[in-house]
This record gives sequence, C-alpha cells and structure tokens, in this order.
Amino acid sequence: MTYEQLFYNIKKKQSYLCVGLDTDINKIPEHLLKTKNPVLEFNKQIIDATQQYTVAYKPNTAFYESMGTKGWENLHLTIKYIKDKYPDILVIADAKRGDIGNTSKMYADAFFNKLNADAITVAPYMGEDSIKPFLEYNNKWVIVLALTSNKGAFDFQFIKENNETLFEKIIKKCNSWSNYKKIMFVIGATKASKLKNIREIAPDNFLLVPGVGAQGGTIEEVAEYGLNKNCGLIVNSSRGIIYADNTTNFANSAKENAFILQQKMKQTLKNL
Amino acid sequence: MTYEQLFYNIKKKQSYLCVGLDTDINKIPEHLLKTKNPVLEFNKQIIDATQQYTVAYKPNTAFYESMGTKGWENLHLTIKYIKDKYPDILVIADAKRGDIGNTSKMYADAFFNKLNADAITVAPYMGEDSIKPFLEYNNKWVIVLALTSNKGAFDFQFIKENNETLFEKIIKKCNSWSNYKKIMFVIGATKASKLKNIREIAPDNFLLVPGVGAQGGTIEEVAEYGLNKNCGLIVNSSRGIIYADNTTNFANSAKENAFILQQKMKQTLKNL
Repeated sequence: MTYEQLFYNIKKKQSYLCVGLDTDINKIPEHLLKTKNPVLEFNKQIIDATQQYTVAYKPNTAFYESMGTKGWENLHLTIKYIKDKYPDILVIADAKRGDIGNTSKMYADAFFNKLNADAITVAPYMGEDSIKPFLEYNNKWVIVLALTSNKGAFDFQFIKENNETLFEKIIKKCNSWSNYKKIMFVIGATKASKLKNIREIAPDNFLLVPGVGAQGGTIEEVAEYGLNKNCGLIVNSSRGIIYADNTTNFANSAKENAFILQQKMKQTLKNL
Repeated sequence: MTYEQLFYNIKKKQSYLCVGLDTDINKIPEHLLKTKNPVLEFNKQIIDATQQYTVAYKPNTAFYESMGTKGWENLHLTIKYIKDKYPDILVIADAKRGDIGNTSKMYADAFFNKLNADAITVAPYMGEDSIKPFLEYNNKWVIVLALTSNKGAFDFQFIKENNETLFEKIIKKCNSWSNYKKIMFVIGATKASKLKNIREIAPDNFLLVPGVGAQGGTIEEVAEYGLNKNCGLIVNSSRGIIYADNTTNFANSAKENAFILQQKMKQTLKNL
C-alpha cells in the first residue's frame, strides 16, 4: 500500500484507527470455543464489525506463535481474510524482528511475500543491515521501534550522546536510509508529550502509536502533538476494542468502542 | 538446562561449539528435495553427524518462518528431534524477540513451553519488562543481544553516555535483573578484541559468539579474550558447517568441519 492510498483511506473513513489483533484463546468469549477454529472465528467477527472505522489491523505475532503451528496458520488466515475482503486496510505484522542482513532478508520474505502483510514492525538495535532488506519491497512499510509505550522504554531509549537520545538518533538514521513513504516509527501514546520534539525530526513520517486505552494514553493528546498535514498518525487500540465484552455480543461492543475512537479522531481531523 | 549441566557437557565433549541450523531449502543438497520433508531430513542428518562435537544447536526462526506454517512445524519437529535424542544438548531458539511485558510473556510461552527450547535470544531495546518474562522460567536461558557480529552493530551499539557504551549498559542492567546462571549475551566474533573489556563487566556469564567462519571471526581470537574459568563461551558456526558441501556427502562434510572446530576448541580448553 502506498502513502497516497493510506492517506486517501484516512480521509475517506475520517479515522486513523488501527485495531490490534492480539488474540488470546484464554480471553475470547466462551461460546466461540465450540467453533472449529475459535481464534480465526473471533478475528473474523472483530474485523467485520470494526472495518468501517478502521484503516489498519495489527496482529502481534507473539499471540499466534504461542499457539504453535496452528497459531502461525491462523496468522496467515487472518491476514488473508483481511486482504481478500478489505484490501484497502493496511495489515501490520507486529513482529519486532531484526537480524543480520541475510537473516532479515528471510524475515522480509516471510512477512511480505508469504504472509502478505503490508507492513512489519522492526527492532533497530542491530542497525542498517538489519533494516535495509525490509526496505527493498515496493509498496511495503517498515515500522521501526523508536520510543515504545512500556516502562522499560526508559532503560535504554533515552540514553544521550551529544545531546541527542538513542531514539532520536534512530529516527534520523532510518530517514537517511529511506524516506517517509516507506518508513514509519513506533511512538508510544504514553509518551505523547515527546511527540512535539519528534515531529521536528520526523515531520512527514507516519507514526504508529500504541498505548491508547489499557496502557493509559489518550487520542486527544496524541493528536495535539502528533498530527501533521497528511494526518501522519496511526493510533492502535487492542484490548480496549477486542476485549470490550466477552459475551455473545462481543463484536457489537468492539464495533461501538471502535466507533467512539473514530468519532474522537474525526474531531481532530477537522481540516482534512 | 542448568549452568552446571552445560559446563559438564562442555568438559565432557571438550567443545563449546554451537551449530546454527539456518536451513534454507534453496541451499540444501538436491537429492534431499525428493524426500517427504527435505528441511527436516537435512536437519536430522546434520544433527546426527555433528552431535558428538556439539554442545548446542541454534535454529534461527527467520529461516523457518520464511517457509510459512510448514516452516513453523519444522522448527517444532527439529527441536523435538534434538531434545528426544540428545537431551544434553542446549537448544537455542535464535528469535531475537522482545515486546511489552504481557506480549513478551506470550513469546516466552511460545518458545519455552510450546517449542521446548532451552534458550531464546532477545533484543534489549524495549528494556526491563520486555526481558523479565523470559527470566521467570526455571532452567531456561535468556540470551540478550549486546554486541552483534554485523556491520550495523556500529550504528547504535557504541553510542556512549558517561563514557559507557550502549552495549555495556545493557550487559550491566541485565545482570542487575538476574545473574550468570540465567543470562548470556551475544557478542560477535567479529568484535573479538572487545571481549577483554566485556569480561571485566561480565566475568561469569556465558557469551554466545556468532560470526566465526563466513563472517570472519576465528576461534583462537575469541578464546584468547573470551574464555573464563568455566569456559563461558558458546561459539556458533552455521554456514561453515551445514553448507560445507551440497552433495550426497553433505553430512560427512559437516561432521568433518565440526570436528575441526572442536579440535581447535579442545586446544584452547587445556586447563578444563
């Protein structure tokens, strides 16, 4: 998916919502456990219920890998379901991969060719050759961890050299390897006040913002500091939407919560 | 596997060799392509041929994920084959995972419970809560990326604050969260001269050292700077062993190359 297509979808839906498909078989409604493939059934119903308010879905690979081979199959089938039925929605494999060049190349093949994801999150620790293989695909996105939403973000990401933090250095270096039409950055909603400074060094990049809802961030704050002239934001909510309700009404509740977030986003997009 | 068991195996085999099972279907001998499951067949023959000289195997998940669901199944079957037949050999899932706490917990479940690996490599960028869930398992190992073997290592790992590099900070922090009986560090053989300084801050930890062979490092250099009183090294070779030969004689060639490395290692272990 191109930058222009993504921006077009955001304007059309008046939304920059991403729904995190962190599907845990121990948390899905009990009645689904009787179906042939509970995780896939849950995902399909969540996707159908929320797609009109959503510009991206983000399955986190950990939740699928913890279910073994069957889980990997479900990750594949979930992405296929989205791309077949709603091809204009961005699919982000939240995988946080990164390895030496010839190995990252295998990951890029796994996620872009075999799983057909539009985007993958990558960890920057191993530097240029760990990220470049992902950049060699047309119309695919690389989303680099910069400032994450968790408490552990303070352990290393704020280390400073020459008055510049590690996450700032990463943003600058990555943008020197490619540009805002291929690279996004992960910036946690729990660090929304930092978005102002980040916009100075990454004015044009899309920022993938997790941490709204269960983790404590708000749409209003993220929008205030993070929006740019082409929106430039994709804000993720996982638990607040997919586990809104664990009765037979779960998909409707997910839809309602997605709608509430989309309405807030629409307010912030008034000039687009 | 405990620290004591690992050290016992090293002394018994006079080896600290790890064989990297980075199995690429495009590189395995042609005659195997006629078998029912070429990747698994290749792995089994490599394992049987090299096990007497080997204290660890390290499948890199990228190579399996690039083969989709079948690849994940092969990763599972490869680990099962090793643990059933050679239970005293350490199995390292080279996965370089790391995510927010509740997600890292799913990865730990995936690799330690479902896949039954003894160890997993993790990326430190997201800090404490991304690593701690892996530390909660008894007799399992967490191997944290510190100084990697690739060129990109110079992009961020040497960033200095208060005269201390990022990789040094990571080693110290990780050892403050746990100890050398649970945590190892990845230190690339291509940076062997740094091992001397690293031993000052990590005197007791095992170091997993990739980069010998195809990437340019040597056993002698790594041993000179990296050995400690309980060996403290696991040195990996992948391509130099598993792709030594792509004829029907491949397993024998792998065995010979493993033997050559083991003999070099034995020389360096003269006091153990």
